[in-house]
Amino acid sequence: MSSKRVGRRTVALSAPPSVIAYANIGGKMEGEGPLGDTFDEISEDSFFGEKTWEKAESAMQKKALSRALDRARLKTGDLDFILAGDLLNQCIGSAFSIRDFGIPFFGLYGACSTMGESLALAAMLIDGGFARRAAAMTSSHFCTAERQYRMPVPYGSQRTPTAQWTATAAGCTILASEGPGPYITHVTCGRIIDQGISDANNMGAAMAVAAYDTLSAFFQDTGTKPQDYDLVVTGDLGELGHGIVRDFFTKDGIDMGPNFQDCGLLIYDREKQDMHAGGSGCGCSASVLNGYLLSGMRSGKWKKILFAPTGALLSPTSSFQGESIPSICHAVLLSAQR
Amino acid sequence: MSSKRVGRRTVALSAPPSVIAYANIGGKMEGEGPLGDTFDEISEDSFFGEKTWEKAESAMQKKALSRALDRARLKTGDLDFILAGDLLNQCIGSAFSIRDFGIPFFGLYGACSTMGESLALAAMLIDGGFARRAAAMTSSHFCTAERQYRMPVPYGSQRTPTAQWTATAAGCTILASEGPGPYITHVTCGRIIDQGISDANNMGAAMAVAAYDTLSAFFQDTGTKPQDYDLVVTGDLGELGHGIVRDFFTKDGIDMGPNFQDCGLLIYDREKQDMHAGGSGCGCSASVLNGYLLSGMRSGKWKKILFAPTGALLSPTSSFQGESIPSICHAVLLSAQR
Repeated sequence: MSSKRVGRRTVALSAPPSVIAYANIGGKMEGEGPLGDTFDEISEDSFFGEKTWEKAESAMQKKALSRALDRARLKTGDLDFILAGDLLNQCIGSAFSIRDFGIPFFGLYGACSTMGESLALAAMLIDGGFARRAAAMTSSHFCTAERQYRMPVPYGSQRTPTAQWTATAAGCTILASEGPGPYITHVTCGRIIDQGISDANNMGAAMAVAAYDTLSAFFQDTGTKPQDYDLVVTGDLGELGHGIVRDFFTKDGIDMGPNFQDCGLLIYDREKQDMHAGGSGCGCSASVLNGYLLSGMRSGKWKKILFAPTGALLSPTSSFQGESIPSICHAVLLSAQR
Repeated sequence: MSSKRVGRRTVALSAPPSVIAYANIGGKMEGEGPLGDTFDEISEDSFFGEKTWEKAESAMQKKALSRALDRARLKTGDLDFILAGDLLNQCIGSAFSIRDFGIPFFGLYGACSTMGESLALAAMLIDGGFARRAAAMTSSHFCTAERQYRMPVPYGSQRTPTAQWTATAAGCTILASEGPGPYITHVTCGRIIDQGISDANNMGAAMAVAAYDTLSAFFQDTGTKPQDYDLVVTGDLGELGHGIVRDFFTKDGIDMGPNFQDCGLLIYDREKQDMHAGGSGCGCSASVLNGYLLSGMRSGKWKKILFAPTGALLSPTSSFQGESIPSICHAVLLSAQR
């Protein structure tokens, strides 16, 4: 057993890295939602001043990274690594934002789990002594995701009741070996779980099993229960997927309680904003974490948050070829204390 | 400065992880090339027994991982992490291969640099004490890449002289904290470099600048020169890109010498096989490393190989939108001695 592992799948960091800065950017709908005032910047223009939505998505990431760097009073050269990814084919949202910064870059693909994946790897690279500071970042854009995964937005296609709304948002966290916290103390890397669900308009249900798998492993490895945390927050399971996870745990005799939340349910007012099953996209959990959640920890509202975003690792091609939806969930524990 | 950094961008591992097993899989063309007998398995069938080429690419990865596990006499549960990615949209080549193994998975996107990126991260996760064993894997398939990036193969489109041939191949390396070597002793993470080249049929030229950037950083950080290594091997720059890197170094007064090679120039017989500028694709450098290069190290032919695959981080969408090609190069130093 390697030195920093707790149980089968969880890593306990020996010198938990600290969040030293964070930033989030959102679009119009995100600004109108209940977390609107937790965004650093809201753009009424879905193009963010660019000519295409894909360039707009890169522009959001640039803004998020620049703001986080400014807040930490760092220059680009002060970051040893940046770990980032997004939903776009070949992750161009990240590549075209980061190319202007000259920061050593590890590109990730974890679909909507990317904020968890990037934080997990960044935390381990710092704890392992490979970096002093590293950034974790991701984004999504409603219009780029609709065009790529479903139909171009101007077609005005009707959405199914289980469909979720891809957030137009980006979030960036900068971690360092020393700082005021919150600290990342534990990481549980997800496994790919596929229970045969093939409805690409019901990704919450497909991802629920991955969330259950990773959260179960985390609780078992650490000998803790949901009530030991102020919040247990999944990424974007939406109403249906989140309920499924709660049901799974109930069958195990574990009550997830009222502190079990989901970024996809927090980001929009689903009654007023008509977002069907809730928000989704890498930018959903990234922007909720890098605003509402981390600010709440900084203000003392919460002391321990288990952040566990999920990703659906499908593509339009895999769906066309009749494949089901493989899913994954990466969990990181954020704590006010080391 | 964090404890394990040498110079600005290079990490020196404190307890260099060992390669404990490796495997590679190739298609018909790769089998007919000069390295044909260094493949563990060659399939004459481009579908690898599956119904689609995308599923075939996943099948290659499954075979590579299974063979590497068998060779190391390990079960899937013995791997703490697998780090993998590929060129397909949403990296489905990796997701649909790894879902059957139940191994904790970090998905990567580094285009054709993925074998370098996955080895770099796997080595750091082991050296940092987060894992005892980890696998690094990637693949590419000529027919999936043509369909996705250019034209469906049945169209029979003519290729430009600077075009490269995407290898149908996969490679997998298993690293562990202890073993007989070769060892990964150093890692240099790439930065995204974009010099404005926008011809997607000339990716070697776009990637050359990234290779020069990372190799220069490595030589400077370690205070070494090309002649200190038995081989300095780029991934798939092809004839044009490889020559450009040599020219850049010549201008710096550094002779790259005859040991400066490229996996894309090694994998095919370009005269007999008519591969234009050479091989490319994640599977090109992955299969050359996990056969020809590692076997040569095991047999004592080479003692130190600097492996530096490059990736072009474009997508068809970014090219259609008039963007140039951002590129990256990750380098890992393999050494027979710790």
